[in-house]
Amino acid sequence: MPHQMRLDKARELARGLELDALLVASPANIFYFTGFRGAPRLLVPPDGKPILLTPGVDLAAAQQHFSGAEVEVRHVRVDQRPDDVLLEVLRELQVRRLGFDSLPLATYRRLAGELGEEGLAEVVEQVWELRKVKDKREVAAIRRACEVASKVMALVPELLAPGVRELEVAGELERELRLAGSEEHPFPIIVASGPNSALPHARASGRELRKGDPVVVDLGATCEGYVSDMTRTFVVGRPEPWQERIYVAVREAQLAAVEALRAGVRACDVDAVARNLIDRAGYADYFVHSLGHGVGIEVHEQPRLAPGVEEELRAGYVITVEPGIYLPGRGGVRIEDTVLVLEEGREVLTGPSAPPRTR
Amino acid sequence: MPHQMRLDKARELARGLELDALLVASPANIFYFTGFRGAPRLLVPPDGKPILLTPGVDLAAAQQHFSGAEVEVRHVRVDQRPDDVLLEVLRELQVRRLGFDSLPLATYRRLAGELGEEGLAEVVEQVWELRKVKDKREVAAIRRACEVASKVMALVPELLAPGVRELEVAGELERELRLAGSEEHPFPIIVASGPNSALPHARASGRELRKGDPVVVDLGATCEGYVSDMTRTFVVGRPEPWQERIYVAVREAQLAAVEALRAGVRACDVDAVARNLIDRAGYADYFVHSLGHGVGIEVHEQPRLAPGVEEELRAGYVITVEPGIYLPGRGGVRIEDTVLVLEEGREVLTGPSAPPRTR
Repeated sequence: MPHQMRLDKARELARGLELDALLVASPANIFYFTGFRGAPRLLVPPDGKPILLTPGVDLAAAQQHFSGAEVEVRHVRVDQRPDDVLLEVLRELQVRRLGFDSLPLATYRRLAGELGEEGLAEVVEQVWELRKVKDKREVAAIRRACEVASKVMALVPELLAPGVRELEVAGELERELRLAGSEEHPFPIIVASGPNSALPHARASGRELRKGDPVVVDLGATCEGYVSDMTRTFVVGRPEPWQERIYVAVREAQLAAVEALRAGVRACDVDAVARNLIDRAGYADYFVHSLGHGVGIEVHEQPRLAPGVEEELRAGYVITVEPGIYLPGRGGVRIEDTVLVLEEGREVLTGPSAPPRTR
Repeated sequence: MPHQMRLDKARELARGLELDALLVASPANIFYFTGFRGAPRLLVPPDGKPILLTPGVDLAAAQQHFSGAEVEVRHVRVDQRPDDVLLEVLRELQVRRLGFDSLPLATYRRLAGELGEEGLAEVVEQVWELRKVKDKREVAAIRRACEVASKVMALVPELLAPGVRELEVAGELERELRLAGSEEHPFPIIVASGPNSALPHARASGRELRKGDPVVVDLGATCEGYVSDMTRTFVVGRPEPWQERIYVAVREAQLAAVEALRAGVRACDVDAVARNLIDRAGYADYFVHSLGHGVGIEVHEQPRLAPGVEEELRAGYVITVEPGIYLPGRGGVRIEDTVLVLEEGREVLTGPSAPPRTR
């Protein structure tokens, strides 16, 4: 199993916090520590074998994945709940102090009934500290996912024409993402045209494109379990002056914020670079979301680039930079790249229709 | 707003349980009560205006959706957390006893700090009681989603040929789903060939199809926010006798279980109909999951058709019936339909390549 080192990190975490075991319940964290998807609970004692609880539906896949590994795969029968088996295992291992990453309220209450609240320690931030800094293999996977997204994004202009429906464009792009090797769509693709482009979370609808529409396309790919996230804004035909104005404002904000990225800078300060520029361009009320977010196993990871987030970025973080301006009822522009933070600067992983690579 | 009646149900729930307000935090439940997606919290007092907490990113969409409705849209600023604003609102409304559907642990703890644990009542099951029985409009949307899925499923045979990759098949099907009007893929499509077909949760991979492969295809569509779920199993070329045997066993189990559906039957008894038949066919150890699940706004809703679930089905439930047999390392078969439970029987909504409609 290639994840031995990751499991060792989980063990160290358990040891350092003087836990009898670390309970991992977030699917993304289980994937991070083991490379396996499909188990609801992973229990890692500081010494001895990790135990993966797996329902029958994923048992064969788990046995295959962990064959020869020092991991016990424990079957959750179809008439059992994972937490029934979890409690059995906790008793077997005589766990008194349990760390956990994130739990459904019902599970938390059951565990609190068994161990007392004082026996439970939330350690989700410590797991994030591990996940936020991407290692070489992770960066390679994200880099591939960025290449796939960029390649497919380059096809968008030829798909946009009056009369074409947003859903059709989305379907073509999804097919191209698959052909280029994307294992999964990390989030519902956004193809938002005309007034829809002013709604940052619009998806794809039956709306037909018209001449002069702005079209926001937000897509990503998944490679070896790691994702990319990228947005470009197009116009069907020639842009009008107001569209040019907001496009230029967003693009300048995006370039400046990318340029500001490097190890040691605070997340809120990067957000402020973009926000101040959009502010000065006269669109302060129309940049209605944070500047970006971490990207990795999940499409929305820590940290956020947002006002008030004082955390300093470190080399190895991968984050999006995605300012936007949205004029309700008229249209919007968003430009987004996935970027790797370096000790001495940054590398933009999405492109080449992206802003130029800068260091 | 077309959801006035649904909000009235939320109010009744709050009134009946003597709550000062009902807090709805599950995105699917917020959609159920309001038809809106994109707000993290909805607060419904038994009298007076419901309050929707909305970050800036979705504010314009919310104002548009609720324009003219008796709902207050409250802005969560980019430097605030939804729970900050939630606490403000709870104080404004002088809420002492709050019902909630489901909460992140951190939110629960914050609320318990404010109201005490005794001021908090979990009412998720009561909300499920509302959601499980689908009304006419919901059935119409699910019916359309089933038609879209069925239409696209009918295209599968012409896509399967030696040398074609699973990912390519997935991409073509996703495009066809979009062209047929699916608003969103309700879950990652499964195209699982050869030995992959023995892993119920396999997705689509780069594997090339070979002659003689079984291929499990599991897909769904979304129409007006409601989804469908459908699986068929194919063979590239001519099936071998062992494939025929498990196919026939699964198909007979599926038909018999569908036939057993009607208002008043217990979920576990429907599961047992299929499980016993597969058992008698000699494959007891290879049907490794429950028989089915509710379908509606989400792809996995209550109730499960599974051993131990003693709940009686009611007319208006929409559930999947999806037995399978999985021979590790060799291949598997699953057949799944989405079915509407009627007072006097059932209606299979997916098809016509499905088992025949029966009543």
